[in-house]
Amino acid sequence: MKKKIKKINAAILIIGNEILSGRTQDKNIAFISNWLNLKCGISVNEVRIVPDIEKTIVNNIRHLSKEFNYVFTTGGIGPTHDDITAQSISKAFKTKYEYHKEAYQILEAYYGKKKFNDGRKKMAKMPRGAKLIYNPSSAAPGFMIKNVLSLPGVPSILNSMIENCKRYLVKGLKTHSKTLNLYTVESNISKRLGLIQKKYKKSVDIGSYPFFRLGKIGVSIVSRSNSIPKLRRVNKDLLKLVKIKKIRILKV
Amino acid sequence: MKKKIKKINAAILIIGNEILSGRTQDKNIAFISNWLNLKCGISVNEVRIVPDIEKTIVNNIRHLSKEFNYVFTTGGIGPTHDDITAQSISKAFKTKYEYHKEAYQILEAYYGKKKFNDGRKKMAKMPRGAKLIYNPSSAAPGFMIKNVLSLPGVPSILNSMIENCKRYLVKGLKTHSKTLNLYTVESNISKRLGLIQKKYKKSVDIGSYPFFRLGKIGVSIVSRSNSIPKLRRVNKDLLKLVKIKKIRILKV
Repeated sequence: MKKKIKKINAAILIIGNEILSGRTQDKNIAFISNWLNLKCGISVNEVRIVPDIEKTIVNNIRHLSKEFNYVFTTGGIGPTHDDITAQSISKAFKTKYEYHKEAYQILEAYYGKKKFNDGRKKMAKMPRGAKLIYNPSSAAPGFMIKNVLSLPGVPSILNSMIENCKRYLVKGLKTHSKTLNLYTVESNISKRLGLIQKKYKKSVDIGSYPFFRLGKIGVSIVSRSNSIPKLRRVNKDLLKLVKIKKIRILKV
Repeated sequence: MKKKIKKINAAILIIGNEILSGRTQDKNIAFISNWLNLKCGISVNEVRIVPDIEKTIVNNIRHLSKEFNYVFTTGGIGPTHDDITAQSISKAFKTKYEYHKEAYQILEAYYGKKKFNDGRKKMAKMPRGAKLIYNPSSAAPGFMIKNVLSLPGVPSILNSMIENCKRYLVKGLKTHSKTLNLYTVESNISKRLGLIQKKYKKSVDIGSYPFFRLGKIGVSIVSRSNSIPKLRRVNKDLLKLVKIKKIRILKV
């Protein structure tokens, strides 16, 4: 018997003053969200960005891990004083914060016994019972505890590790999407578009996003659904609208 | 007598499925956060990204408007069915959702009476009592109600409107920052850096961020504080650390 695939969701918790202050432009949200949907059929339903404050991280981990199937954290698992993600997650789950034997061995082998200083050792400390997420680019592993997966904040390192999260995730229904780029303005189509959305309100999410390209303005209509046949039907209705309103489609 | 300037904070609520799904890379968080700090001395302490779901928006507006001095929302104030920010904020504050007289006049004048259709009229509907945030690029205004300021999601339009928020904001203490880019790795300096942070824990936030440039790795040490003299003292201590460890500084 085929196992029925369910909707599975996730939240992302970005931990880091540098993102909040605007110093650093986040790149991890879009990357994780696209990867989760494409490779695992998991959709991200909420993102939070919080500062490096233990109490804040603890509260957010407790809340998000209850509300969503998975929580991905980024940032705060390095060797410096502002890296407090692992200890905060330990507190959130009331588990011990201690050396992870395998992580310790990996890091000791990577740096060599002599150069394995306190800062580097800190990266082997995790909540008790954590499972490792291996890091092919800079050795220091991420970890999973309960339904929380912790990854580093540096995008190139995070990107190299994401495939190693897969083994811990239950796959869900993939969200498919179809985009139609139209040379029109939103207010020209909003009424009919609203009616189409109403017709498919349970199965398809239709979004409307203005764009500006080569001095021309337009609207991208993005339909998203777990069902490809439903997406096709919405597309048919959209093409009817385009015809009635005599709108030019931008082929990309 | 000089009025004492206090710390003032804000949260940003990004409303939009397109950011959550990873289709669109957010650019508004860094822009708003930098502008608020530089121009108004307001620091962003939390960011949330949520889908176009009324109940979710209502709950987040209620929570964030209680927790922070100001809440900035982006997205969902256009003419289409997925633009539900204004009606959701009305619900959150239990105020009527109705035409704003001046917004109606602005939009009617902009589009002309004949072309002022239902979708366009929708952009004049706001919570009762809202004050307008004028829009020099595409007419449709944002609004402020209680401590919530609503802006559009399109970055170029948002950027053109941000100065018009200033009149509604009480200015706070500006956060100054100083960055030192070092050719070293975090774990080489983590211990001493932690001690410096401890010494100034009440007045300066010190962050440590790895970077990769021209094939070389390094660490940016970013100190942030409301006090410039304190920042100078931290910088002195950091330069001592650099000297002891014989680290090369990257001049930018």
